[in-house]
Amino acid sequence: MAAADVDDDVLGADPTARRFESEMAALTGKDAALFVPSGTMANLISVLVHCDVRGSEVILGDTSHIHVYENGGISTIGGVHPRTVANNPDGTMDVDKIVAAIRNPDGALLYPTTRLICLENTHANADKVGEIAVNHGLKLHIDGARIFNASVALGVPVHRLVKAADSVSVCLSKGLGAPIGSVIVGSKAFIDKAKILRKTLGGGMRQVGVLCAAAYVAVRDTVGKLADDHRKAKALAEGLKKIKQFTVDSSSVETNMVFFDIVDPRISPNKLCEVLEQRNVLAMPASSKSVRFVIHYQISDSDVQYALTCVEKAVEELLKGGTKLEHLINGTAKNAYWH
Amino acid sequence: MAAADVDDDVLGADPTARRFESEMAALTGKDAALFVPSGTMANLISVLVHCDVRGSEVILGDTSHIHVYENGGISTIGGVHPRTVANNPDGTMDVDKIVAAIRNPDGALLYPTTRLICLENTHANADKVGEIAVNHGLKLHIDGARIFNASVALGVPVHRLVKAADSVSVCLSKGLGAPIGSVIVGSKAFIDKAKILRKTLGGGMRQVGVLCAAAYVAVRDTVGKLADDHRKAKALAEGLKKIKQFTVDSSSVETNMVFFDIVDPRISPNKLCEVLEQRNVLAMPASSKSVRFVIHYQISDSDVQYALTCVEKAVEELLKGGTKLEHLINGTAKNAYWH
Amino acid sequence: MAAADVDDDVLGADPTARRFESEMAALTGKDAALFVPSGTMANLISVLVHCDVRGSEVILGDTSHIHVYENGGISTIGGVHPRTVANNPDGTMDVDKIVAAIRNPDGALLYPTTRLICLENTHANADKVGEIAVNHGLKLHIDGARIFNASVALGVPVHRLVKAADSVSVCLSKGLGAPIGSVIVGSKAFIDKAKILRKTLGGGMRQVGVLCAAAYVAVRDTVGKLADDHRKAKALAEGLKKIKQFTVDSSSVETNMVFFDIVDPRISPNKLCEVLEQRNVLAMPASSKSVRFVIHYQISDSDVQYALTCVEKAVEELLKGGTKLEHLINGTAKNAYWH
Amino acid sequence: MAAADVDDDVLGADPTARRFESEMAALTGKDAALFVPSGTMANLISVLVHCDVRGSEVILGDTSHIHVYENGGISTIGGVHPRTVANNPDGTMDVDKIVAAIRNPDGALLYPTTRLICLENTHANADKVGEIAVNHGLKLHIDGARIFNASVALGVPVHRLVKAADSVSVCLSKGLGAPIGSVIVGSKAFIDKAKILRKTLGGGMRQVGVLCAAAYVAVRDTVGKLADDHRKAKALAEGLKKIKQFTVDSSSVETNMVFFDIVDPRISPNKLCEVLEQRNVLAMPASSKSVRFVIHYQISDSDVQYALTCVEKAVEELLKGGTKLEHLINGTAKNAYWH
Repeated sequence: MAAADVDDDVLGADPTARRFESEMAALTGKDAALFVPSGTMANLISVLVHCDVRGSEVILGDTSHIHVYENGGISTIGGVHPRTVANNPDGTMDVDKIVAAIRNPDGALLYPTTRLICLENTHANADKVGEIAVNHGLKLHIDGARIFNASVALGVPVHRLVKAADSVSVCLSKGLGAPIGSVIVGSKAFIDKAKILRKTLGGGMRQVGVLCAAAYVAVRDTVGKLADDHRKAKALAEGLKKIKQFTVDSSSVETNMVFFDIVDPRISPNKLCEVLEQRNVLAMPASSKSVRFVIHYQISDSDVQYALTCVEKAVEELLKGGTKLEHLINGTAKNAYWH
Repeated sequence: MAAADVDDDVLGADPTARRFESEMAALTGKDAALFVPSGTMANLISVLVHCDVRGSEVILGDTSHIHVYENGGISTIGGVHPRTVANNPDGTMDVDKIVAAIRNPDGALLYPTTRLICLENTHANADKVGEIAVNHGLKLHIDGARIFNASVALGVPVHRLVKAADSVSVCLSKGLGAPIGSVIVGSKAFIDKAKILRKTLGGGMRQVGVLCAAAYVAVRDTVGKLADDHRKAKALAEGLKKIKQFTVDSSSVETNMVFFDIVDPRISPNKLCEVLEQRNVLAMPASSKSVRFVIHYQISDSDVQYALTCVEKAVEELLKGGTKLEHLINGTAKNAYWH
Repeated sequence: MAAADVDDDVLGADPTARRFESEMAALTGKDAALFVPSGTMANLISVLVHCDVRGSEVILGDTSHIHVYENGGISTIGGVHPRTVANNPDGTMDVDKIVAAIRNPDGALLYPTTRLICLENTHANADKVGEIAVNHGLKLHIDGARIFNASVALGVPVHRLVKAADSVSVCLSKGLGAPIGSVIVGSKAFIDKAKILRKTLGGGMRQVGVLCAAAYVAVRDTVGKLADDHRKAKALAEGLKKIKQFTVDSSSVETNMVFFDIVDPRISPNKLCEVLEQRNVLAMPASSKSVRFVIHYQISDSDVQYALTCVEKAVEELLKGGTKLEHLINGTAKNAYWH
Repeated sequence: MAAADVDDDVLGADPTARRFESEMAALTGKDAALFVPSGTMANLISVLVHCDVRGSEVILGDTSHIHVYENGGISTIGGVHPRTVANNPDGTMDVDKIVAAIRNPDGALLYPTTRLICLENTHANADKVGEIAVNHGLKLHIDGARIFNASVALGVPVHRLVKAADSVSVCLSKGLGAPIGSVIVGSKAFIDKAKILRKTLGGGMRQVGVLCAAAYVAVRDTVGKLADDHRKAKALAEGLKKIKQFTVDSSSVETNMVFFDIVDPRISPNKLCEVLEQRNVLAMPASSKSVRFVIHYQISDSDVQYALTCVEKAVEELLKGGTKLEHLINGTAKNAYWH
């Protein structure tokens, strides 16, 4: 980062940013790319650029990140009307439900105008949805926060996964390990508009090369390690499965995340995570009865073993009850919404 | 209308408007009322006044009129984020689903702030929802487009039906028969804000007494006739039931609207309505296989009989097929969204 | 109004509305017209249709009605950024200042995009501004609230005055005397978009023919009387000029409005208007030292004489001082902003 | 930056960010601070938090950065209506003009509600304006992009300069030399709301400590060098003054910026800057006849002398005319808007 060749990127002059963006465009098979400070901004800009005319509507999943966890910014900041379609447990939406949600243009007097469909990461039916979008004159945006993990897990290159998309947001600070940032990719015209909106929102940064340099390394060096993360996640899942107070659906461990349910009512996710944190094992409550682990490239095989040992001990301790942590815990899964 | 005592209501000086609004406030058991040009504006103003702080979210039914048929104005004009809850077939929403949709204020960093729940007309559970709203510091708005019909059908006074609501919109030009207008009712403070927003949106009108006079007569004279409309609707439903190409659920005929399904694939709703219109019987396709009739006080018992005769003849004609109307019809229920 | 041939105009079916709109389009030399409830909505819709893409800017006068007296709706509801140019005392804006206010498209990264110029009524330089608009790819909207008065005063037909405009709003309830309403005129494509936005804002009304019928009569019968209003306004101005406590610039009395300044500090506009109102002569404070009279077709020559007599007497009375009205008056020109 | 102690700041957990923000709050005499990616976001968030209720208006200078160079974001993204007051040549606004621009709350039916006044950097009258704000129930925001330079030039501590302000934005990447970022300071309640809006806009960043560490050093080490920058700026101005094709008002060289006018029509700002750039001397056209230099701590006294020599040579060269640069130059000050 300190060695990056930088300049004022508000003037479009930062060479490291330019190089990184070219690289990301190439990797995702799109014409152009834009570095932005966060995944929320990446999605916000993408939706707003596709829906730049007042009276636009976007079709998206009712449990999608954009709809649920991004402050409703597309409406509250962008005036875009969301039309939700039920997400299946695997995150997909039924194609016929998507089609049914597209507004009949003849009803424009009563309806907002559908302009965009949003999918998340890698949906088996992205190509099919892309076809629908084209047939109805709509755009397709993919919230690809974890698209590199998906690509590795599926053994399909990223550019193929997002082929049907007019735009994709990619998070650099999750599995890839960059300290800060996301990237939006799309056509040249789309990115030109995105750049203006990034400035409007205040996401234009000056010597942004310091961040792009780190992101560059993340993409170059970390992608190759993701398969290893996934292998370790499976090992962790297998270990957790042996603890009789938990249930783990190993088939759902496809990438670097492991979710497990606690079936013993004496152990709450919050309590468990508190006890683990004292031993420097960081997990996150995912609901009132489930917990989430995430593996990244700095977690070694022995770290996984250490974590498993700590979990076992924490379960024991909690079953004995009456720990002095009691007062720290408010009983609600207050962090359950973080991703 | 011509005899109404009027003045410039933009200056708040129209005496007929004042009197009419007082009357409506009294009828609905609220402190104050405001005449507006349409039901869409009534709902838009109500939602926007309750959600006047940036970052607000409203909970409403996924098939509700506000969400589906009002251009998405609450988002596209008002920047309010909608959070939909599935409507049951009778239009209600399950109370536990409403509770689940209320955002946890601890997650304010990721969530918009829930500020309002919207119900339609008369939901059996309005009181219960009102209680939930109070407990969570939310407001309750009732889209009471047909609240007078509901009141008559249920034998419960309007002010009782909307007791739990902080605001109600009432349409004057549907069953009540006024040429133009809706009314919003609520607290004095709410109506004061609504008045400003009405002006902002361009709904402040000058000698509005000419419209309020007509609305006054509508409310005074028509409400007493609604029971008769409902009786005629039931008669119409009974008659339609005898036509073997149709199915009618008479128990669903609660007010002045009759919906029936066409079970014979040779008869489309659009075709049927076209043929009826030639005989001055106006019906409306309600879906790809159902049709809607609406009764109002100018429809007599013999009109109902005439309509039934015309429907029978139209069915016969259509079954013979090959009418010259064929080319007029585009096969899609393009008017299905009107209310 | 009661005799008007009406139908549901939300369905686009009201024949009186259709006829009136055609007439207004013809009179103003535009392709199409749309009846709306108010002048505020007429301007709001016009600006928002021309600026339907997020990030739009409009150039308008710093004392213009849209900028100062319409709740800032173009921003607060429409998200359009206003860029003001100083209005000269006669309401015009210098052409070179307008040109200077147009954003350089090369600076799109920092600037909103200029899309529209707004003028008021009849600016001598409307044709010149229209040319500038065309050269820069901008639209021109004229807020023609009193355009018929201007047309009569200048002896130039309305369609010629607004020739350069892409859209014009015309108030029907000021000099023309209709109880309610304004009209927007423009191209077919513009009016199609305006119709959708009217619905979104809640300005679509059902049996709107009852209002259009009145507006039709207003335009048909009142326009011919405006010259007479202007003559009476001049007579009133001449009479006021003779009162030594006042100054009147008769050359500024071009249409049906008379403004005069009070040079005697013992007489405040508010006090004067209060005293006059007791004698049924309605005037309005226009600033801390000026008063406004407006003439309409129901004001006869003898009414003008009566008003002058009342003004003389009121001045006398106020100079004697100590009237019992004192307590009614709050000293601020609180109504000074009405038009 | 690489050594910074970081954590996920979206979870509010980054210790370096916390420490830096505390430091900035202390330096500016406010309760709390928030790191954001840019000055544009700092201002956007500040205005939107103070104007969080729909229908808000802000009073600001007609040449202010927020109004002219930030994409109109407060309106196009935030729906806030700007009311401009003429800026004097020194950037101040007359106090009586500010007072006159405050809307009369009695006119709320026609007016947006004034909620905020924005000043830039250090206005001699900030205290007076703060008093006006308090008296009218308004908030005061200072766009303090270069407040540290102002503080050093005036010999008045920053916390004193911004005493009257409810919020201040401070740029870290201008004179202070951090690679990226701005800071907002204000009350605890203000910063709490700002944090939510930062997330909504997409300005929440994960391991933001990498940037805060750099900013921390910038503030710690660079502020002490600003007086030296100012001294060098004066030296540069004195040198430029001796070139007879230029005029320089040395009294206007108060901080680290030097503006000079070119009085010889054969030399355009664009041409001059192009020629200088070939010699690695970076200046920027500031208008069609003026040029801007900015000094920062990495510019030594001998750099200043080198720049002066290059300017002299460039002038000579341009006067000889016919350089081969001709074709590169488009004659308009296309970069004149950067700050």
